Formats: sequence, structure tokens, C-alpha cells
Amino acid sequence: EIIAAASRLLNADGASAAQGGPLAGKHVLVTSGPTHEPIDPVRYIANRSSGKQGHAIARAAAALGADVTLVTGPVALADPAGINVVHIETAQEMAQAVANALPADVAIFAAAVADWRTTAQKQAKIKKSAGGKPQLELTENPDILAGVGNRTEGRPTLVIGFAAETENVVAEATRKRQTKGADWIVANDVSPARGVFGGDGNTVHLVTAHGVEDWPTLSKDEVAARLMAHIADHFNSKASVAE
Amino acid sequence: EIIAAASRLLNADGASAAQGGPLAGKHVLVTSGPTHEPIDPVRYIANRSSGKQGHAIARAAAALGADVTLVTGPVALADPAGINVVHIETAQEMAQAVANALPADVAIFAAAVADWRTTAQKQAKIKKSAGGKPQLELTENPDILAGVGNRTEGRPTLVIGFAAETENVVAEATRKRQTKGADWIVANDVSPARGVFGGDGNTVHLVTAHGVEDWPTLSKDEVAARLMAHIADHFNSKASVAE
Repeated sequence: EIIAAASRLLNADGASAAQGGPLAGKHVLVTSGPTHEPIDPVRYIANRSSGKQGHAIARAAAALGADVTLVTGPVALADPAGINVVHIETAQEMAQAVANALPADVAIFAAAVADWRTTAQKQAKIKKSAGGKPQLELTENPDILAGVGNRTEGRPTLVIGFAAETENVVAEATRKRQTKGADWIVANDVSPARGVFGGDGNTVHLVTAHGVEDWPTLSKDEVAARLMAHIADHFNSKASVAE
Repeated sequence: EIIAAASRLLNADGASAAQGGPLAGKHVLVTSGPTHEPIDPVRYIANRSSGKQGHAIARAAAALGADVTLVTGPVALADPAGINVVHIETAQEMAQAVANALPADVAIFAAAVADWRTTAQKQAKIKKSAGGKPQLELTENPDILAGVGNRTEGRPTLVIGFAAETENVVAEATRKRQTKGADWIVANDVSPARGVFGGDGNTVHLVTAHGVEDWPTLSKDEVAARLMAHIADHFNSKASVAE
């Protein structure tokens, strides 16, 4: 952990700072993709997520000079260049990888983390003949966003969550911003008719303490760039106030 | 359907036959990949399958001059060139796509079809707050291999199933060959330690009416080529007997 922190400092003083981007010297942590929760060795429960939005955010952060850690579930995307990528499968592994990646100046939770895992993962494949239909008993997974957002020590300056909803999108996002201790929530409507999952476009609402910004439909790359510009503005205005 | 059959005949007399491969004029149906069974708009149950083995088999069949239909679940693989590819998501959609693709001379069921689907798919995202842990009620999916293998009319000449097991691999495959009406079963051990899922290697056993062939560990492309050579031999020896 000391080595990781030192290498981040070196990056901040060296490569990233040399790029002179507005986020040079900042450590940005991004989660992306789904998690897979094993039922048995061949079956699992998953959330729909291509990882396109989260990976785009990681790239956008690196483009502004940040030192980026990307914690990602199983996706069909290549690791972005120049970014420290940590591959995980389950929500518990993601929670651990996030804890390991802290401290960070900004943490952006774009992954679609499974809310539940099976209580007891079967070591052998469940057979169809073995007593009819299996009952899946589910246990709640750790809430990674709330865990970081509600930290009293070592909390990132800016904690940003995502809310993928099919109903009452902005109301749900506003509620989540408060209960999860997030500074901002990026909310979107993932009803099947919207075609967000796996697609390249996204229509989001940015929910902050100041209210709700409705963004137009943009590419996921554009959403990432716009979000990252907001983050850079946030640090610049804070810096101005501090001076 | 008549048009599809006619175009296959034309292919047989035209393009495929012109290639002069040992399977020219044969229609080979291959299933590949996992199926995804939706729980709600954002969650689903899946089987582990990269589709690498099934797609390799489809390519190997085309290389021997066959007219190939590939019915595939969601995979991160490109559609193989020169093959009619049908994309599906659920087991029910795969069963329908297989029925639509018949008649076929050879049907190879390499897909990892989910055995169960949720009884009632929720139209809106299940909320964590809504009454604690959700219980997932499961319904058995149609057995696509058994459905085709046990056909009394329009059964392909050669019906080949796959059995991914973690215990008693050959015994399970032998049982499945009989109950599912398959001619051959390609069985493999998918215990996590084996690294078969997503990997490029595979160690399989070919179970036929004549017994069990244990194949060495091969690449998935080599398994596909060897299986397809067996199939070509089968048709050639049958042709010799008929003459």
C-alpha cells in the first residue's frame, strides 16, 4: 500500500503532472461493469452492464491528467491504456478492491453491483433431477457506494454514485444521494425501451446538493467528458475559495 | 421456410458443393454461448460460457464445406464469416430459433442453456427496500437437446450434445446420451480448477454408442476440427454402406 501511494505520488510529480491536465495529481477511482454472483460452478446472477460508461469515465479522467484506478467486473472491453485496472468478479471482491485503492480524491461508482448474492454457493453443479426446482436464498451484498460515501475518515473529496432506474428516476436518485452519503448521483432510465444497456448513448440527470441538471442524450464518451469537466471545475473553484 | 430450404439446396449445388469439402451439401446447426434469463430489467441469471467452443465448431463445419446455422446467446465474439448467425438471449428464444433452423443433417448443441428461468419476470427493477430479500421462483426451461434428439419426425441424422459437468463426468454424459436421445455427447470437466470457462483449451470425452473416447487436452479449435472430422467420417462411411 505504501508502494502504491508512493507510485501515485511519483506519478503526480512526474508523468501526470507533466501532462499539466486540470486533474494532475488527483487520484480518481472508478468502478465499472457488472458483478457476477456465483450460484454454482456453472451458473451466476448478473447485472446488465457493458462497462462502456464506466470505462469511458476512467479514460476521460486520465485525459485530464488524473492518476486513475479502474475496478471492473467482467466486461468485453479492453483495459484502457495508462490506467491501473483491477479485475474482480463479485460484489465482495469489488468492495475489497475499492478499499485497497483508497485513498482517492474522487471516487466514481459506475459499476452495476449485484444487490444480492446466493447465501451458500454450491461447490458442485446443481442437477436438474436433484429435488425439482432449486430455491435460491439470497443475502444482501455490501453497499459499496454507501460504505465510502458515509466514511468519517479517509472519505474522498468527491463521491459520485450512479443510479440506474426504471421508475421515478430523479426521485430515486435524490433519495440515494442522501442515504448513501454521495455528493453527486448520475441517474439514468434503463427501461428496456431506452436501449441504454450495451448501447453507446445515454440520457442522464446529474443530481447534486444544488438540484438536478437534465443532460441531453449524449454518447457515453460525451457523458464521461462532461462529468469530468464538472469534477475539474469543482476542484478549481474549491482551490480558488481556499486561496 | 421453403425459401430457406431452397437457398440451402442452391448452396449445396452451388457455393458449398463447389468448395468440394466433405460436408458440402450438409446443413449443420450449431448452438453456442450462454443464455440469459431475466429476473427484472437489470438483473439476470446466466450460465458461464464464452461461446469459444461452439463458435469454433461452426467455423470448422464451414471449413469442411457445410452450410452452417449458428444460434448463439450473448457472447463477446464476432460473428464468424460465411455463417448464418441467429442471436438470441433466453432458452425459450434459443428453442424457437433451433426449431426455425430445422431441418438439418447435423445438430450440435454446444450452448450452455440455463436450466431454469424466473417464473414471473418483473417489469420494474426490484428495489432493495421492497420487503427484504427477494425469493426467486424458478421454472424449468425446455430441454432443447432432448427435444430434438427425441424427435420422431424431422430428426437430424446426427444429434450431438455437450455435457459440462463437475462430478462423474463420463457417467453423467452416458446417462444424458440415452435420456436425451443424442447420438454423441461431448463431455468435459468444468470444475473451476480446470480453467475451461473462457479459456482456449479443453479436455473432452466423446461418448457414443460404441463407448468412450478420451481425447487429450486440445485447443478449442482443435476439438472442433477433430469433432468435425468424426462427423465427416460418419457420413462417408454411411454413404459407403448405402452404396
